[in-house]
Amino acid sequence: MSLWFTEKQTENVGFSIKVSRQLFSKKSDFQKIEIFDSEEFGRFLALDGIMMLTEKDEHIYHEMIVHPAMAVHPRAKDILVIGAGDGGVLRELARYKSIKHIDVVEIDENVVEAAKEFLPQTACGFKDPRIDLHFEDGVRFVRRKSDCYDLIIVDSTDPFGPGEGLFTKEFYGGCNKALRKDGILVNQHESPFYKDDAAAMAHTHKHIFKRFPIAKVYQAHIPTYPSGHWLFGFASKKYHPLKNLNSDKWNALKIKTRYYNTNLHLGAFALPTYVEEMLKDVE
Amino acid sequence: MSLWFTEKQTENVGFSIKVSRQLFSKKSDFQKIEIFDSEEFGRFLALDGIMMLTEKDEHIYHEMIVHPAMAVHPRAKDILVIGAGDGGVLRELARYKSIKHIDVVEIDENVVEAAKEFLPQTACGFKDPRIDLHFEDGVRFVRRKSDCYDLIIVDSTDPFGPGEGLFTKEFYGGCNKALRKDGILVNQHESPFYKDDAAAMAHTHKHIFKRFPIAKVYQAHIPTYPSGHWLFGFASKKYHPLKNLNSDKWNALKIKTRYYNTNLHLGAFALPTYVEEMLKDVE
Repeated sequence: MSLWFTEKQTENVGFSIKVSRQLFSKKSDFQKIEIFDSEEFGRFLALDGIMMLTEKDEHIYHEMIVHPAMAVHPRAKDILVIGAGDGGVLRELARYKSIKHIDVVEIDENVVEAAKEFLPQTACGFKDPRIDLHFEDGVRFVRRKSDCYDLIIVDSTDPFGPGEGLFTKEFYGGCNKALRKDGILVNQHESPFYKDDAAAMAHTHKHIFKRFPIAKVYQAHIPTYPSGHWLFGFASKKYHPLKNLNSDKWNALKIKTRYYNTNLHLGAFALPTYVEEMLKDVE
Repeated sequence: MSLWFTEKQTENVGFSIKVSRQLFSKKSDFQKIEIFDSEEFGRFLALDGIMMLTEKDEHIYHEMIVHPAMAVHPRAKDILVIGAGDGGVLRELARYKSIKHIDVVEIDENVVEAAKEFLPQTACGFKDPRIDLHFEDGVRFVRRKSDCYDLIIVDSTDPFGPGEGLFTKEFYGGCNKALRKDGILVNQHESPFYKDDAAAMAHTHKHIFKRFPIAKVYQAHIPTYPSGHWLFGFASKKYHPLKNLNSDKWNALKIKTRYYNTNLHLGAFALPTYVEEMLKDVE
Protein backbone atom coordinates (compact mmCIF):
# COMPACT_ATOMS: atom_id res chain seq x y z
CA MET A 1 0.00 0.00 0.00
CA SER A 2 1.10 3.57 -0.53
CA LEU A 3 -0.76 6.63 0.72
CA TRP A 4 -0.64 9.84 -1.32
CA PHE A 5 -1.83 13.35 -0.47
CA THR A 6 -2.78 15.26 -3.63
CA GLU A 7 -3.46 18.97 -3.81
CA LYS A 8 -5.31 20.16 -6.87
CA GLN A 9 -3.25 23.27 -7.57
CA THR A 10 -5.66 24.10 -10.36
CA GLU A 11 -8.50 22.07 -11.86
CA ASN A 12 -5.93 20.53 -14.21
CA VAL A 13 -2.81 20.24 -12.06
CA GLY A 14 -2.13 17.93 -9.13
CA PHE A 15 0.82 17.94 -6.73
CA SER A 16 1.19 14.71 -4.75
CA ILE A 17 3.25 13.77 -1.74
CA LYS A 18 3.74 10.24 -0.49
CA VAL A 19 2.52 10.20 3.08
CA SER A 20 3.81 7.94 5.82
CA ARG A 21 0.90 8.69 8.17
CA GLN A 22 -1.76 11.16 9.15
CA LEU A 23 -1.02 12.76 12.52
CA PHE A 24 -4.03 15.01 13.00
CA SER A 25 -7.42 15.77 11.49
CA LYS A 26 -10.11 18.11 12.80
CA LYS A 27 -12.90 20.16 11.36
CA SER A 28 -12.87 23.48 13.20
CA ASP A 29 -15.50 26.23 12.92
CA PHE A 30 -13.46 27.67 10.07
CA GLN A 31 -11.74 24.91 8.15
CA LYS A 32 -10.51 21.35 8.00
CA ILE A 33 -7.10 21.08 9.66
CA GLU A 34 -4.86 18.14 8.77
CA ILE A 35 -1.26 17.28 9.58
CA PHE A 36 0.64 14.49 7.84
CA ASP A 37 4.11 13.04 8.01
CA SER A 38 6.13 12.30 4.86
CA GLU A 39 9.59 11.13 3.98
CA GLU A 40 10.30 13.86 1.43
CA PHE A 41 8.98 16.93 3.24
CA GLY A 42 8.76 15.90 6.88
CA ARG A 43 5.53 16.94 8.57
CA PHE A 44 3.11 19.13 6.67
CA LEU A 45 -0.03 21.12 7.44
CA ALA A 46 -3.03 21.33 5.12
CA LEU A 47 -6.07 23.59 5.58
CA ASP A 48 -9.12 22.58 3.56
CA GLY A 49 -6.85 20.32 1.51
CA ILE A 50 -4.38 23.10 0.62
CA MET A 51 -0.79 22.73 1.76
CA MET A 52 0.16 25.55 4.12
CA LEU A 53 3.63 24.49 5.10
CA THR A 54 6.03 21.57 5.04
CA GLU A 55 9.01 21.15 7.34
CA LYS A 56 11.31 20.96 4.31
CA ASP A 57 10.51 24.33 2.74
CA GLU A 58 8.59 26.44 5.30
CA HIS A 59 11.79 28.29 6.16
CA ILE A 60 11.82 29.85 2.69
CA TYR A 61 8.35 31.34 3.12
CA HIS A 62 8.92 32.43 6.72
CA GLU A 63 12.35 33.94 6.12
CA MET A 64 11.10 35.82 3.08
CA ILE A 65 7.98 37.23 4.73
CA VAL A 66 9.97 38.55 7.74
CA HIS A 67 13.58 39.46 6.98
CA PRO A 68 13.27 41.82 3.98
CA ALA A 69 11.15 44.32 5.95
CA MET A 70 13.26 43.90 9.10
CA ALA A 71 16.41 44.63 7.06
CA VAL A 72 14.83 47.84 5.72
CA HIS A 73 13.01 49.36 8.71
CA PRO A 74 15.61 51.03 10.96
CA ARG A 75 13.70 50.47 14.22
CA ALA A 76 10.75 48.10 13.99
CA LYS A 77 9.64 47.67 17.60
CA ASP A 78 5.91 47.06 17.49
CA ILE A 79 4.74 44.36 15.14
CA LEU A 80 1.35 43.02 14.14
CA VAL A 81 1.07 39.60 12.55
CA ILE A 82 -2.20 38.47 11.00
CA GLY A 83 -2.61 34.73 10.56
CA ALA A 84 0.57 32.81 11.33
CA GLY A 85 -1.24 30.13 13.34
CA ASP A 86 1.67 27.76 12.78
CA GLY A 87 4.16 30.08 14.51
CA GLY A 88 6.75 30.23 11.72
CA VAL A 89 6.61 34.01 11.30
CA LEU A 90 7.00 34.42 15.07
CA ARG A 91 10.03 32.15 15.15
CA GLU A 92 11.77 34.42 12.62
CA LEU A 93 10.67 37.64 14.38
CA ALA A 94 11.89 36.29 17.72
CA ARG A 95 15.45 36.52 16.40
CA TYR A 96 15.40 40.32 16.61
CA LYS A 97 16.22 41.61 20.10
CA SER A 98 15.16 45.10 19.02
CA ILE A 99 11.48 44.08 18.76
CA LYS A 100 9.48 45.07 21.84
CA HIS A 101 6.02 43.68 21.25
CA ILE A 102 4.22 41.42 18.77
CA ASP A 103 0.44 41.18 18.44
CA VAL A 104 -0.62 37.98 16.70
CA VAL A 105 -4.17 37.71 15.40
CA GLU A 106 -5.20 34.23 14.33
CA ILE A 107 -8.84 33.45 13.65
CA ASP A 108 -8.64 29.73 14.39
CA GLU A 109 -7.38 28.64 17.82
CA ASN A 110 -7.42 25.02 16.65
CA VAL A 111 -4.60 25.70 14.19
CA VAL A 112 -2.37 27.00 16.98
CA GLU A 113 -3.20 24.02 19.21
CA ALA A 114 -2.51 21.53 16.43
CA ALA A 115 0.77 23.27 15.55
CA LYS A 116 1.89 23.27 19.18
CA GLU A 117 1.29 19.54 19.38
CA PHE A 118 2.54 18.38 15.97
CA LEU A 119 4.66 21.12 14.38
CA PRO A 120 7.32 22.04 16.96
CA GLN A 121 9.63 23.32 14.18
CA THR A 122 7.35 26.35 13.63
CA ALA A 123 5.29 26.43 16.85
CA CYS A 124 8.45 27.13 18.87
CA GLY A 125 7.79 30.72 17.76
CA PHE A 126 4.91 31.04 20.24
CA LYS A 127 7.26 30.75 23.22
CA ASP A 128 8.53 34.32 22.91
CA PRO A 129 7.35 36.40 25.88
CA ARG A 130 6.93 39.51 23.70
CA ILE A 131 3.92 37.92 21.97
CA ASP A 132 0.25 38.65 22.67
CA LEU A 133 -1.96 36.11 20.97
CA HIS A 134 -5.49 37.14 19.96
CA PHE A 135 -7.98 34.65 18.60
CA GLU A 136 -10.18 36.80 16.43
CA ASP A 137 -10.80 38.05 12.93
CA GLY A 138 -7.84 40.08 11.62
CA VAL A 139 -10.07 42.52 9.75
CA ARG A 140 -11.96 43.45 12.92
CA PHE A 141 -8.77 43.65 15.01
CA VAL A 142 -7.09 46.04 12.58
CA ARG A 143 -10.17 48.28 12.44
CA ARG A 144 -9.64 49.30 16.09
CA LYS A 145 -5.95 50.17 15.70
CA SER A 146 -4.39 53.47 14.75
CA ASP A 147 -0.78 54.69 14.37
CA CYS A 148 0.71 51.99 16.60
CA TYR A 149 2.69 49.47 14.50
CA ASP A 150 6.00 49.70 12.68
CA LEU A 151 5.42 46.54 10.70
CA ILE A 152 2.34 44.50 9.80
CA ILE A 153 2.84 41.02 8.33
CA VAL A 154 -0.16 39.41 6.67
CA ASP A 155 0.46 35.68 6.65
CA SER A 156 -2.91 34.79 5.20
CA THR A 157 -4.28 31.62 3.68
CA ASP A 158 -5.65 31.88 0.14
CA PRO A 159 -8.34 34.46 -0.69
CA PHE A 160 -11.10 31.85 -0.41
CA GLY A 161 -12.60 30.69 2.90
CA PRO A 162 -11.64 32.21 6.27
CA GLY A 163 -8.83 34.37 4.81
CA GLU A 164 -11.11 36.10 2.30
CA GLY A 165 -11.54 39.37 4.24
CA LEU A 166 -7.76 39.82 4.31
CA PHE A 167 -7.72 40.48 0.57
CA THR A 168 -10.18 43.42 0.60
CA LYS A 169 -9.50 47.11 0.18
CA GLU A 170 -11.10 47.79 3.55
CA PHE A 171 -8.51 45.58 5.23
CA TYR A 172 -5.52 47.20 3.53
CA GLY A 173 -6.92 50.63 4.35
CA GLY A 174 -7.16 49.50 7.98
CA CYS A 175 -3.54 48.33 7.88
CA ASN A 176 -2.46 51.73 6.58
CA LYS A 177 -4.24 53.44 9.48
CA ALA A 178 -2.80 51.00 12.02
CA LEU A 179 0.77 51.68 10.87
CA ARG A 180 2.95 54.52 12.13
CA LYS A 181 4.00 57.20 9.64
CA ASP A 182 7.06 55.17 8.59
CA GLY A 183 5.38 51.76 8.80
CA ILE A 184 5.73 48.80 6.44
CA LEU A 185 3.13 46.21 5.39
CA VAL A 186 4.26 42.83 4.07
CA ASN A 187 1.61 40.67 2.47
CA GLN A 188 1.70 37.14 1.08
CA HIS A 189 0.73 37.81 -2.49
CA GLU A 190 -0.05 34.45 -4.13
CA SER A 191 1.60 33.41 -7.40
CA PRO A 192 1.67 35.03 -10.85
CA PHE A 193 1.59 31.75 -12.79
CA TYR A 194 -1.78 30.01 -12.72
CA LYS A 195 -4.78 32.10 -13.76
CA ASP A 196 -6.77 32.26 -10.51
CA ASP A 197 -3.69 32.87 -8.34
CA ALA A 198 -2.52 35.58 -10.73
CA ALA A 199 -5.93 37.27 -10.61
CA ALA A 200 -5.82 37.27 -6.78
CA MET A 201 -2.31 38.71 -6.91
CA ALA A 202 -3.28 41.51 -9.30
CA HIS A 203 -6.39 42.31 -7.27
CA THR A 204 -4.36 42.54 -4.05
CA HIS A 205 -1.64 44.66 -5.62
CA LYS A 206 -4.27 47.06 -6.95
CA HIS A 207 -5.73 47.64 -3.47
CA ILE A 208 -2.33 48.06 -1.81
CA PHE A 209 -0.91 50.28 -4.57
CA LYS A 210 -3.79 52.74 -4.07
CA ARG A 211 -3.20 53.00 -0.34
CA PHE A 212 0.59 53.21 0.01
CA PRO A 213 3.09 55.62 -1.58
CA ILE A 214 5.54 52.73 -2.06
CA ALA A 215 4.13 49.38 -3.22
CA LYS A 216 6.63 46.87 -4.58
CA VAL A 217 6.53 43.12 -5.10
CA TYR A 218 9.25 40.54 -4.54
CA GLN A 219 9.54 36.83 -5.22
CA ALA A 220 10.83 33.56 -3.83
CA HIS A 221 11.10 29.90 -4.84
CA ILE A 222 8.70 27.92 -2.64
CA PRO A 223 8.53 24.42 -4.12
CA THR A 224 5.35 23.18 -2.39
CA TYR A 225 3.22 26.20 -3.34
CA PRO A 226 1.47 26.18 -6.74
CA SER A 227 4.04 26.75 -9.51
CA GLY A 228 6.80 27.23 -6.91
CA HIS A 229 6.90 30.92 -7.86
CA TRP A 230 5.59 32.93 -4.93
CA LEU A 231 5.21 36.67 -4.48
CA PHE A 232 5.14 39.02 -1.50
CA GLY A 233 3.94 42.60 -1.39
CA PHE A 234 6.15 45.23 0.28
CA ALA A 235 4.03 48.34 0.96
CA SER A 236 5.50 51.25 2.79
CA LYS A 237 4.80 54.82 3.87
CA LYS A 238 8.43 55.95 3.85
CA TYR A 239 11.14 53.33 3.37
CA HIS A 240 12.04 51.97 -0.04
CA PRO A 241 12.77 48.23 -0.07
CA LEU A 242 16.01 48.64 -2.02
CA LYS A 243 17.25 52.18 -1.34
CA ASN A 244 16.68 51.81 2.41
CA LEU A 245 18.09 48.31 2.75
CA ASN A 246 20.79 48.46 5.41
CA SER A 247 22.82 45.37 4.52
CA ASP A 248 25.69 46.06 6.89
CA LYS A 249 23.40 46.52 9.85
CA TRP A 250 21.41 43.37 9.07
CA ASN A 251 24.53 41.28 8.47
CA ALA A 252 25.99 42.51 11.77
CA LEU A 253 23.02 40.90 13.55
CA LYS A 254 24.44 37.53 12.45
CA ILE A 255 21.02 35.95 12.04
CA LYS A 256 21.60 32.54 10.49
CA THR A 257 19.27 31.99 7.53
CA ARG A 258 19.10 29.25 4.94
CA TYR A 259 17.38 31.15 2.10
CA TYR A 260 17.44 34.91 2.76
CA ASN A 261 20.55 37.02 2.44
CA THR A 262 20.96 40.72 1.67
CA ASN A 263 22.24 40.06 -1.85
CA LEU A 264 19.18 37.90 -2.56
CA HIS A 265 17.05 40.68 -1.05
CA LEU A 266 18.12 42.97 -3.90
CA GLY A 267 17.63 40.24 -6.48
CA ALA A 268 14.18 39.23 -5.22
CA PHE A 269 12.69 42.55 -6.35
CA ALA A 270 13.86 42.01 -9.95
CA LEU A 271 10.75 40.46 -11.47
CA PRO A 272 10.11 38.66 -14.75
CA THR A 273 8.74 40.88 -17.50
CA TYR A 274 5.32 39.20 -17.50
CA VAL A 275 4.92 39.84 -13.75
CA GLU A 276 5.98 43.47 -14.15
CA GLU A 277 3.36 43.85 -16.85
CA MET A 278 0.63 42.30 -14.67
CA LEU A 279 1.47 44.75 -11.89
CA LYS A 280 1.58 47.78 -14.21
CA ASP A 281 -1.83 46.81 -15.59
CA VAL A 282 -3.46 47.46 -12.21
CA GLU A 283 -1.38 50.46 -11.10
CA MET B 1 -13.17 9.79 -17.83
CA SER B 2 -10.17 11.96 -17.16
CA LEU B 3 -6.64 11.24 -18.35
CA TRP B 4 -3.69 12.36 -16.22
CA PHE B 5 0.02 12.41 -16.98
CA THR B 6 2.06 12.04 -13.79
CA GLU B 7 5.78 12.63 -13.50
CA LYS B 8 7.46 11.18 -10.44
CA GLN B 9 9.69 14.16 -9.60
CA THR B 10 11.21 12.05 -6.84
CA GLU B 11 10.22 8.67 -5.47
CA ASN B 12 7.86 10.50 -3.12
CA VAL B 13 6.60 13.43 -5.20
CA GLY B 14 4.25 13.39 -8.18
CA PHE B 15 3.34 16.24 -10.53
CA SER B 16 0.22 15.59 -12.59
CA ILE B 17 -1.28 17.33 -15.60
CA LYS B 18 -4.75 16.64 -16.94
CA VAL B 19 -4.30 15.59 -20.53
CA SER B 20 -6.81 16.13 -23.30
CA ARG B 21 -5.09 13.69 -25.69
CA GLN B 22 -1.87 12.03 -26.66
CA LEU B 23 -0.53 13.35 -29.97
CA PHE B 24 2.61 11.27 -30.44
CA SER B 25 4.42 8.30 -28.98
CA LYS B 26 7.54 6.57 -30.27
CA LYS B 27 10.36 4.56 -28.85
CA SER B 28 13.54 5.76 -30.57
CA ASP B 29 16.99 4.17 -30.27
CA PHE B 30 17.62 6.50 -27.33
CA GLN B 31 14.41 7.15 -25.45
CA LYS B 32 10.62 7.12 -25.39
CA ILE B 33 9.29 10.30 -26.98
CA GLU B 34 5.75 11.42 -26.13
CA ILE B 35 3.76 14.54 -26.89
CA PHE B 36 0.46 15.36 -25.21
CA ASP B 37 -2.07 18.15 -25.34
CA SER B 38 -3.49 19.72 -22.18
CA GLU B 39 -5.76 22.58 -21.26
CA GLU B 40 -3.48 24.09 -18.60
CA PHE B 41 -0.10 23.90 -20.34
CA GLY B 42 -0.94 23.46 -24.02
CA ARG B 43 1.16 20.81 -25.73
CA PHE B 44 4.00 19.21 -23.84
CA LEU B 45 6.92 16.92 -24.61
CA ALA B 46 8.07 14.08 -22.36
CA LEU B 47 11.22 11.97 -22.80
CA ASP B 48 11.23 8.70 -20.88
CA GLY B 49 8.31 10.05 -18.84
CA ILE B 50 10.10 13.27 -17.81
CA MET B 51 8.57 16.57 -18.90
CA MET B 52 10.98 18.46 -21.15
CA LEU B 53 8.83 21.41 -22.10
CA THR B 54 5.28 22.70 -22.08
CA GLU B 55 3.95 25.44 -24.33
CA LYS B 56 2.95 27.47 -21.26
CA ASP B 57 6.35 27.79 -19.60
CA GLU B 58 9.03 26.74 -22.12
CA HIS B 59 9.72 30.41 -22.87
CA ILE B 60 11.12 30.85 -19.35
CA TYR B 61 13.67 28.09 -19.80
CA HIS B 62 14.59 29.08 -23.35
CA GLU B 63 14.86 32.81 -22.65
CA MET B 64 16.98 32.16 -19.58
CA ILE B 65 19.38 29.74 -21.26
CA VAL B 66 20.03 32.13 -24.17
CA HIS B 67 19.67 35.83 -23.32
CA PRO B 68 21.94 36.22 -20.24
CA ALA B 69 25.04 35.11 -22.19
CA MET B 70 24.01 37.06 -25.29
CA ALA B 71 23.61 40.20 -23.18
CA VAL B 72 27.13 39.74 -21.76
CA HIS B 73 29.24 38.63 -24.77
CA PRO B 74 30.00 41.69 -26.90
CA ARG B 75 30.18 39.82 -30.22
CA ALA B 76 28.90 36.24 -30.11
CA LYS B 77 28.95 35.16 -33.75
CA ASP B 78 29.61 31.43 -33.74
CA ILE B 79 27.40 29.37 -31.50
CA LEU B 80 27.24 25.70 -30.61
CA VAL B 81 24.08 24.24 -29.14
CA ILE B 82 24.08 20.73 -27.70
CA GLY B 83 20.68 19.10 -27.36
CA ALA B 84 17.82 21.48 -28.14
CA GLY B 85 15.95 18.95 -30.27
CA ASP B 86 12.74 20.89 -29.70
CA GLY B 87 14.11 24.05 -31.31
CA GLY B 88 13.35 26.47 -28.46
CA VAL B 89 16.96 27.59 -27.94
CA LEU B 90 17.29 28.19 -31.68
CA ARG B 91 14.14 30.30 -31.77
CA GLU B 92 15.65 32.61 -29.14
CA LEU B 93 19.08 32.71 -30.82
CA ALA B 94 17.48 33.51 -34.17
CA ARG B 95 16.47 36.89 -32.78
CA TYR B 96 20.09 38.12 -32.87
CA LYS B 97 21.10 39.42 -36.29
CA SER B 98 24.72 39.55 -35.12
CA ILE B 99 24.97 35.75 -34.99
CA LYS B 100 26.64 34.27 -38.08
CA HIS B 101 26.46 30.53 -37.59
CA ILE B 102 24.88 28.00 -35.23
CA ASP B 103 25.91 24.35 -34.98
CA VAL B 104 23.20 22.23 -33.37
CA VAL B 105 24.10 18.76 -32.15
CA GLU B 106 21.15 16.60 -31.20
CA ILE B 107 21.62 12.89 -30.62
CA ASP B 108 18.05 11.86 -31.47
CA GLU B 109 16.68 12.80 -34.90
CA ASN B 110 13.25 11.53 -33.86
CA VAL B 111 12.91 14.34 -31.31
CA VAL B 112 13.46 16.95 -34.02
CA GLU B 113 10.98 15.25 -36.35
CA ALA B 114 8.33 15.00 -33.63
CA ALA B 115 8.86 18.64 -32.62
CA LYS B 116 8.58 19.80 -36.23
CA GLU B 117 5.26 18.01 -36.56
CA PHE B 118 3.66 18.69 -33.17
CA LEU B 119 5.51 21.55 -31.45
CA PRO B 120 5.56 24.44 -33.94
CA GLN B 121 5.94 26.95 -31.10
CA THR B 122 9.52 25.80 -30.50
CA ALA B 123 10.37 23.97 -33.75
CA CYS B 124 10.01 27.24 -35.68
CA GLY B 125 13.59 27.78 -34.47
CA PHE B 126 14.90 25.25 -37.01
CA LYS B 127 13.90 27.48 -39.94
CA ASP B 128 16.82 29.84 -39.48
CA PRO B 129 19.28 29.51 -42.43
CA ARG B 130 22.29 30.08 -40.16
CA ILE B 131 21.75 26.65 -38.54
CA ASP B 132 23.68 23.46 -39.29
CA LEU B 133 21.98 20.48 -37.72
CA HIS B 134 24.11 17.46 -36.75
CA PHE B 135 22.55 14.23 -35.52
CA GLU B 136 25.27 12.81 -33.33
CA ASP B 137 26.57 12.55 -29.80
CA GLY B 138 27.47 15.97 -28.37
CA VAL B 139 30.49 14.62 -26.49
CA ARG B 140 32.04 13.24 -29.66
CA PHE B 141 31.23 16.38 -31.67
CA VAL B 142 32.87 18.69 -29.16
CA ARG B 143 36.00 16.52 -29.01
CA ARG B 144 36.86 17.47 -32.61
CA LYS B 145 36.45 21.23 -32.10
CA SER B 146 39.02 23.77 -31.03
CA ASP B 147 38.97 27.54 -30.54
CA CYS B 148 35.97 28.13 -32.81
CA TYR B 149 32.89 29.10 -30.76
CA ASP B 150 31.96 32.26 -28.85
CA LEU B 151 29.13 30.59 -26.98
CA ILE B 152 28.22 26.99 -26.21
CA ILE B 153 24.75 26.25 -24.84
CA VAL B 154 24.20 22.83 -23.30
CA ASP B 155 20.46 22.19 -23.37
CA SER B 156 20.71 18.68 -22.02
CA THR B 157 18.16 16.29 -20.62
CA ASP B 158 18.76 14.98 -17.10
CA PRO B 159 22.06 13.27 -16.26
CA PHE B 160 20.54 9.83 -16.69
CA GLY B 161 20.01 8.11 -20.05
CA PRO B 162 21.20 9.62 -23.34
CA GLY B 163 22.26 12.94 -21.76
CA GLU B 164 24.60 11.29 -19.25
CA GLY B 165 27.87 12.02 -21.09
CA LEU B 166 27.04 15.74 -21.08
CA PHE B 167 27.57 15.88 -17.32
CA THR B 168 31.15 14.55 -17.30
CA LYS B 169 34.41 16.41 -16.77
CA GLU B 170 35.66 15.21 -20.16
CA PHE B 171 32.76 16.97 -21.84
CA TYR B 172 33.25 20.29 -20.03
CA GLY B 173 36.96 20.12 -20.77
CA GLY B 174 36.05 19.63 -24.44
CA CYS B 175 33.75 22.66 -24.29
CA ASN B 176 36.56 24.77 -22.87
CA LYS B 177 38.83 23.73 -25.75
CA ALA B 178 36.11 24.36 -28.34
CA LEU B 179 35.54 27.91 -27.09
CA ARG B 180 37.50 30.94 -28.21
CA LYS B 181 39.62 32.74 -25.63
CA ASP B 182 36.69 34.93 -24.57
CA GLY B 183 34.03 32.23 -24.93
CA ILE B 184 31.07 31.51 -22.65
CA LEU B 185 29.46 28.17 -21.74
CA VAL B 186 25.88 28.06 -20.49
CA ASN B 187 24.69 24.80 -19.01
CA GLN B 188 21.31 23.66 -17.74
CA HIS B 189 22.18 22.87 -14.16
CA GLU B 190 19.25 20.97 -12.64
CA SER B 191 17.65 22.07 -9.37
CA PRO B 192 19.07 22.59 -5.88
CA PHE B 193 15.98 21.36 -4.04
CA TYR B 194 15.46 17.61 -4.24
CA LYS B 195 18.38 15.44 -3.19
CA ASP B 196 19.28 13.72 -6.48
CA ASP B 197 18.87 16.89 -8.57
CA ALA B 198 20.99 18.82 -6.08
CA ALA B 199 23.72 16.16 -6.22
CA ALA B 200 23.77 16.39 -10.03
CA MET B 201 23.94 20.17 -9.79
CA ALA B 202 26.86 20.13 -7.35
CA HIS B 203 28.71 17.51 -9.41
CA THR B 204 28.30 19.60 -12.58
CA HIS B 205 29.37 22.81 -10.89
CA LYS B 206 32.48 21.09 -9.54
CA HIS B 207 33.58 20.03 -13.03
CA ILE B 208 32.87 23.39 -14.60
CA PHE B 209 34.44 25.39 -11.75
CA LYS B 210 37.73 23.52 -12.24
CA ARG B 211 37.86 24.27 -15.95
CA PHE B 212 36.81 27.94 -16.21
CA PRO B 213 38.21 31.04 -14.50
CA ILE B 214 34.66 32.37 -14.05
CA ALA B 215 31.93 29.89 -13.02
CA LYS B 216 28.72 31.38 -11.69
CA VAL B 217 25.21 30.02 -11.27
CA TYR B 218 21.88 31.75 -11.87
CA GLN B 219 18.28 30.76 -11.29
CA ALA B 220 14.79 30.95 -12.75
CA HIS B 221 11.24 29.96 -11.85
CA ILE B 222 10.22 27.11 -14.16
CA PRO B 223 6.94 25.73 -12.79
CA THR B 224 6.86 22.38 -14.61
CA TYR B 225 10.39 21.33 -13.62
CA PRO B 226 10.90 19.58 -10.27
CA SER B 227 10.52 22.11 -7.43
CA GLY B 228 10.10 24.97 -9.94
CA HIS B 229 13.54 26.23 -8.89
CA TRP B 230 15.91 25.77 -11.79
CA LEU B 231 19.58 26.66 -12.12
CA PHE B 232 21.88 27.46 -15.02
CA GLY B 233 25.65 27.53 -15.05
CA PHE B 234 27.44 30.52 -16.61
CA ALA B 235 31.08 29.59 -17.22
CA SER B 236 33.38 31.99 -18.94
CA LYS B 237 36.99 32.54 -19.93
CA LYS B 238 36.85 36.33 -19.80
CA TYR B 239 33.47 38.01 -19.34
CA HIS B 240 31.84 38.31 -15.95
CA PRO B 241 28.06 37.75 -16.03
CA LEU B 242 27.32 40.88 -13.99
CA LYS B 243 30.26 43.26 -14.53
CA ASN B 244 30.18 42.71 -18.29
CA LEU B 245 26.42 42.88 -18.72
CA ASN B 246 25.74 45.57 -21.32
CA SER B 247 22.12 46.43 -20.48
CA ASP B 248 21.87 49.43 -22.78
CA LYS B 249 23.12 47.51 -25.75
CA TRP B 250 20.80 44.57 -25.11
CA ASN B 251 17.78 46.80 -24.51
CA ALA B 252 18.53 48.67 -27.74
CA LEU B 253 18.03 45.40 -29.62
CA LYS B 254 14.35 45.59 -28.60
CA ILE B 255 14.00 41.82 -28.31
CA LYS B 256 10.55 41.20 -26.86
CA THR B 257 10.76 38.73 -23.98
CA ARG B 258 8.18 37.58 -21.46
CA TYR B 259 10.47 36.50 -18.61
CA TYR B 260 14.01 37.82 -19.16
CA ASN B 261 14.96 41.45 -18.71
CA THR B 262 18.29 43.04 -17.82
CA ASN B 263 17.18 43.91 -14.30
CA LEU B 264 16.14 40.30 -13.69
CA HIS B 265 19.50 39.25 -15.19
CA LEU B 266 21.25 40.94 -12.24
CA GLY B 267 18.77 39.49 -9.75
CA ALA B 268 18.99 35.94 -11.11
CA PHE B 269 22.60 35.60 -9.92
CA ALA B 270 21.63 36.42 -6.31
CA LEU B 271 21.17 32.93 -4.90
CA PRO B 272 19.62 31.64 -1.69
CA THR B 273 22.10 30.99 1.08
CA TYR B 274 21.65 27.21 0.96
CA VAL B 275 22.47 27.16 -2.77
CA GLU B 276 25.54 29.35 -2.24
CA GLU B 277 26.71 26.92 0.42
CA MET B 278 26.19 23.90 -1.86
CA LEU B 279 28.28 25.58 -4.54
CA LYS B 280 31.04 26.62 -2.14
CA ASP B 281 31.24 23.06 -0.86
CA VAL B 282 32.45 21.83 -4.26
CA GLU B 283 34.61 24.81 -5.26
